[in-house]
Amino acid sequence: MSAESITKYIDDNAQRFESEYFDWLRIPSISTDPAYADDVKKAAEWIADRLAQMGLKPEMIETKRHPLVYAETPAVKGAPIILVYGHFDVQPVDPLDLWTTPPFEPAVRHGSVFARGATDDKGQLLTHVFAAEAVLKETTLPYQIKFLFEGEEEDGSESLTEYVKKHKDKLACDCLVVSDGSMFGPGQPAVTYGLRGLMCFELTLTGPGRDLHSGVFGGAVYNPAIALSQMMNRMIDENGHIQVPDFYKDVVPLSERERKQFADLPLDEEEFFGKIGLKKGFGEKGFTSIERRWARPTFDINGLTSGYQGEGSKTVLPSKASAKFTFRLVPKQDPAKIVKSLEAYLHSLCPPGITMQLDYQHGANGLLVSLDSVFVEAATKALEETFGCPPFYTREGGSIPIITLMSDVLEADVLLLGLGLDDDNTHAPNEKFSLDSFHKGIKTSARLLQEIARYQKMRKA
Amino acid sequence: MSAESITKYIDDNAQRFESEYFDWLRIPSISTDPAYADDVKKAAEWIADRLAQMGLKPEMIETKRHPLVYAETPAVKGAPIILVYGHFDVQPVDPLDLWTTPPFEPAVRHGSVFARGATDDKGQLLTHVFAAEAVLKETTLPYQIKFLFEGEEEDGSESLTEYVKKHKDKLACDCLVVSDGSMFGPGQPAVTYGLRGLMCFELTLTGPGRDLHSGVFGGAVYNPAIALSQMMNRMIDENGHIQVPDFYKDVVPLSERERKQFADLPLDEEEFFGKIGLKKGFGEKGFTSIERRWARPTFDINGLTSGYQGEGSKTVLPSKASAKFTFRLVPKQDPAKIVKSLEAYLHSLCPPGITMQLDYQHGANGLLVSLDSVFVEAATKALEETFGCPPFYTREGGSIPIITLMSDVLEADVLLLGLGLDDDNTHAPNEKFSLDSFHKGIKTSARLLQEIARYQKMRKA
Repeated sequence: MSAESITKYIDDNAQRFESEYFDWLRIPSISTDPAYADDVKKAAEWIADRLAQMGLKPEMIETKRHPLVYAETPAVKGAPIILVYGHFDVQPVDPLDLWTTPPFEPAVRHGSVFARGATDDKGQLLTHVFAAEAVLKETTLPYQIKFLFEGEEEDGSESLTEYVKKHKDKLACDCLVVSDGSMFGPGQPAVTYGLRGLMCFELTLTGPGRDLHSGVFGGAVYNPAIALSQMMNRMIDENGHIQVPDFYKDVVPLSERERKQFADLPLDEEEFFGKIGLKKGFGEKGFTSIERRWARPTFDINGLTSGYQGEGSKTVLPSKASAKFTFRLVPKQDPAKIVKSLEAYLHSLCPPGITMQLDYQHGANGLLVSLDSVFVEAATKALEETFGCPPFYTREGGSIPIITLMSDVLEADVLLLGLGLDDDNTHAPNEKFSLDSFHKGIKTSARLLQEIARYQKMRKA
Repeated sequence: MSAESITKYIDDNAQRFESEYFDWLRIPSISTDPAYADDVKKAAEWIADRLAQMGLKPEMIETKRHPLVYAETPAVKGAPIILVYGHFDVQPVDPLDLWTTPPFEPAVRHGSVFARGATDDKGQLLTHVFAAEAVLKETTLPYQIKFLFEGEEEDGSESLTEYVKKHKDKLACDCLVVSDGSMFGPGQPAVTYGLRGLMCFELTLTGPGRDLHSGVFGGAVYNPAIALSQMMNRMIDENGHIQVPDFYKDVVPLSERERKQFADLPLDEEEFFGKIGLKKGFGEKGFTSIERRWARPTFDINGLTSGYQGEGSKTVLPSKASAKFTFRLVPKQDPAKIVKSLEAYLHSLCPPGITMQLDYQHGANGLLVSLDSVFVEAATKALEETFGCPPFYTREGGSIPIITLMSDVLEADVLLLGLGLDDDNTHAPNEKFSLDSFHKGIKTSARLLQEIARYQKMRKA
């Protein structure tokens, strides 16, 4: 195996990699909206086709919803197995009018490509595919790589969850490799060892059976939009503490060692918040911004809907009001317990004349992985060699529910090698991905695959 | 003048009146949405054309926004002047999917016509136009009638307000006749002697400069949708009392006489709330449902908008959150004072990291008129004769801001002769108007015009 020839292959094909990446971004594979189901399928076919061109025999695995794509290199007895995971579905795009260029027409500005899915996760996923193409072109790996890509990550990964539980043997691996997150900062690579869990809800309140004239009925009927404000107001107190009974019961306090480690990270808070148009942050009392984002559970309202939303005024007393909201969890918190407690709490807050419906849409546990594995050692070397500096060891505030599950079911280590930046606008208008990170990501992944080849003893007993 | 010949004319033309009424309903004259400006104009041209066919010379009065339509019969020296007011604009129609038949395709079911504007106010306005057509066809009135119709009533009546102030002499009158409200119940006509005032606002909160990933940033940034819930929660307390400082300062307490009069009204509360899908009402502590709806100020949220509103979930921390809300006022409350107090109050509640913008969209004082005028006497006779029972004397919870203004500026009495029903779905999907009320309304108005002819002494000194 020649590191030089692999690097040369990557350099020689850089333009083609970009061009193929942009083609994939043009497919509007929004998984949460059924109107885009065909596009999610097209995105699956695209990556399956890509894997086939590398000489693999990809499977399109049909599910109740969006298909999975799986491929593998030949098994090598006694050698480790790496499973590369990623997702080809993307978040919705509204508010559409805030996009500078259309979300599914990739446009390059200032060295970044702007498109929905650019960083989350098509761009990051592809770094591993193109790296494997380069490595497999130039050598035969002394261990097995499996690729498993899904199209429901932004909507709960239900199909993959079921598939993983049913196909433990097929998916057996020693380490999951995932790039679906952020570096610490530009030019500051990171190995992420923790993810927050997640619970997504929609609460719908119904008052009168139809919208009413606020003059004729106002004052004599409980207004569901007022009820919603009152109930949402009771979710957190003035110190940012979540008020759902027993919510913090299983939260493991941050160790002094970890607090110190976080405090030592070179974060310029003014710059960090300045980038999102704020002077400073705000959150749970008694914790720093990093602690709040990475290691504390949170409550956020994601959407509010009620009554008239057009231009001007409409003097209506709405029949319904709804809120979409999420909790981010930390490891050890149990979504099942929280659902129960939340539902009872909301019922206790629901006022007379209002009926409530709480939909628990999806959820996941948090994840904390060990920094002591040989895979972390290999990744550290690969990142250091490509970026010219050692990685930071960080946690992440976001959630990749399926990772937690796969790590549990497959009993595998996890390598979280995020390549995005905090201002990449994931889940928001003008999502972008640095092309420099894209190309460095391919080289890092190729380097990682070579490093892993050196560890013939990494296979579990 | 022959009452019989007028009644015969009305009966003979009943089908044509309906058919013309339905034609008018087909014009989607939504005034609050600029996209419908041409349709508001078409609705104005339609009624002007209708008045011209009666032999009048209507004026289309252009304004900065929607046109006014004015017409008059010849002046009669020393005799009273009646000004018939109405509006040809309508409320928006969303949520459109809740309409059984399309809002601008009038459909008759169970003796009522369903369409946006059916009762508010095209149907009620037309009763006076068709009545005048019948009366003027058969006789020459010994006093003057003026017709003044506008297309901005649902959006603040700005153009008419300006016009009334500038053309006091042209519009001079002794009594305004308005049908833009409700009867007490089916077959229970009413003379309404009070209207609530109104203030319409939109509060927009901005947190981060763009939508954020709720995992990456959640917990460390003030979420504007949470801030909105918290601020709206502080608008009323658990007893339904509005919390804006000094809000109740100018509220005149209800007299014992009026409370008794309200209590004596034959209202079946169970039936009243049952019609809107509720078991019972809810509102300000210490007041009955009628008092809450007619004679107490109120706060209602009309719309909430923030973040993701599509299907499924989106784990976004929204950049903005907004609420449209209204206060209903009682006479003596001063909108100018309340705006000031509200703005200061909301600023005091606005949390760190959130900027607020409060738009005061439009407002109006409340109205209380005397029951001792000869016009009330004439209307009482006209209603009694047509409906076969004496009218109830009621107040109304809704607002017709322009009426208060015209009554003040023109120093005129007001006759509020509502023909709608509380379940007519004004401002809501499936608005309707009883065709029986439509035809009885025409007869009542014709009767009223004849009664007024008897009062040659009603002209002010």
